Order: sequence, then C-alpha cells, then structure tokens
Amino acid sequence: MNFVIRKGEVHDVNAILRLIKELAEFEKLPNEVEVTEDHLIRDGFSSNSKFKTFVAEDSDGFVIGMALFFERYSTWKGRIIHLEDLMVTKSHRGIGAGKALYTEVLKYADLQGCKRVSWEVLDWNKSAVGFYESTGATILDSWQVVHMNETGLKEFVKKN
Amino acid sequence: MNFVIRKGEVHDVNAILRLIKELAEFEKLPNEVEVTEDHLIRDGFSSNSKFKTFVAEDSDGFVIGMALFFERYSTWKGRIIHLEDLMVTKSHRGIGAGKALYTEVLKYADLQGCKRVSWEVLDWNKSAVGFYESTGATILDSWQVVHMNETGLKEFVKKN
Repeated sequence: MNFVIRKGEVHDVNAILRLIKELAEFEKLPNEVEVTEDHLIRDGFSSNSKFKTFVAEDSDGFVIGMALFFERYSTWKGRIIHLEDLMVTKSHRGIGAGKALYTEVLKYADLQGCKRVSWEVLDWNKSAVGFYESTGATILDSWQVVHMNETGLKEFVKKN
Repeated sequence: MNFVIRKGEVHDVNAILRLIKELAEFEKLPNEVEVTEDHLIRDGFSSNSKFKTFVAEDSDGFVIGMALFFERYSTWKGRIIHLEDLMVTKSHRGIGAGKALYTEVLKYADLQGCKRVSWEVLDWNKSAVGFYESTGATILDSWQVVHMNETGLKEFVKKN
C-alpha cells in the first residue's frame, strides 16, 4: 500500500477528528473527546492557529493517519515541539505511515532549530514505547503528568 | 511576610531566570538550563509571546516566586493551559506564595474557558504531589513523558 505525507488542510478536518476519536478509543477513553470539527477548523486552520498537522494519504485519496503538534515552551530549552497525537487507522498499520509521520514532525522540529520534541505515551502501549526508544527518544520515568480537569478547576476557583 | 501577585514584566526577566535555575537545581538538573535572559525577553515579552508569567513580589520589591505558563492544545479538550514552572525561592517558602501563584494561573485558565490545566511533577517531590492532589488535581499514573533531545533529534534526522 502506498501513501504520501503532506500538510493537513482544512478539508481534512473530518478525517482528523475521526482519527482523534479512534485514538481515544484505543486509549480506552472515547468519551473524553469534546472537540468538534468547528473547534478544529477555528483552532488549527485560521490566522490564529494553535496547532499544525501532517496527514498520510493513501493512493485512493483517503487520509489514513495524522500527526498533530504545536510549539510549546521549555524554560530549559526554549521553543520546543510537542507531538500531541500520532495515529494511523487500524486497517493501515504496518505500512510505515506512523514512522513517516513521526519523521516528518522531527524534521520540522529540527528545521525550526528546536532543542527538544516532547510527547506522552501510555505505559501499557509497549509497541509505541519500544518504537520511540528505538528512534533515540527517552522515557522519563520520574516525571508524572498532572491534570486539573474542568470540574476540579471550577471547584477550586470557587473556593479560592 | 507579605507579598503581592502580579503579571510578570520584562524587567522581571533576571529574577525569572534566577528562579528557573533554582528550580532546575532543586530538580537535580542544573546544567539543563540553556535559555538566557535574551531568549526569555524575545519569547515572553514581545509581540509574539510564547508564554505568560505571574510573579510574587515581597514588600521590599523583590521577586520571590513565579509561575510560567502557556496555551497548548488538547485534541480532547481544545485550548488548555500548561503550567510549565511554579517556583518560590527557598528563603520564602511556607508563606503561601506558591499557592497564590498556582491559584492565579487556575483562575486565568478558568476565565479563558479552558477545560483543563496540565503540568508535570517529579514523583519524588512528595510535598508537591500532595499539594496538587489536595487541590483536586489528578496524577496520571499510566502516562509517561517522552523526550527526544537535541542530540537524538539531529541523529534521527540525519538517518531518516
């Protein structure tokens, strides 16, 4: 199966959201996805974009995978790239599309002069962990991700 | 000891960098800090700012703490706030400045309509973990932080 990697465009938003939802299902949290196509258009394909995407398109023109990333700030390294989602649809795994998308993001980060690319992985996703380590990335065992969700935020703000 | 919380200004950059370095020392990685005052001025106090700050200032006008944060994008929740650094200088701990800075960031996120605030904590920093949990935040045990550092990035890009 052949594919090409290209920048995501506004007409890909439907496919991008489908992949976001498929990834959330894989991560066993399908009900967590609250973003809509309208949010993605506003936040990714306007003059004030919050993220960029690359997509993998097969020879029939179907989007079979995507990487979504943005610039964030490290107080140690300055401007870095954060890879938020990397996803290939189940029927098209094993053809190299995931690695090609990942490579495109790393090349973009390097071209921008970034000193780090960061992302997060589920510890039970052993194949992803193994792949990342094989490319030279490091799993930071001591750092933990913390979230204050919307309910917690509203309760905290009310009390403080 | 009294203090006030206010937005960080460009004239605070020296104090902000001092706190960044003190935090990196506390985290046992002092040599990781590569940003300079010039980087912070360009990246935080220009028309194209990558982050915002709040500072805690004592009654003598000294900056004793700071919170550095920015907007990032969640494919589940949309625009969220990421708290990159929260730091109070050692001599001024225990007077509530850390909680006041943290509260200011959460209030900012709530005002912006964000559905999440995220950050990272070292698992051995039990007092921080306990504090965050006491405020309603959740430590995500299954997620791991991954970094591709500059050397790894350059090597990967060369090979791919």
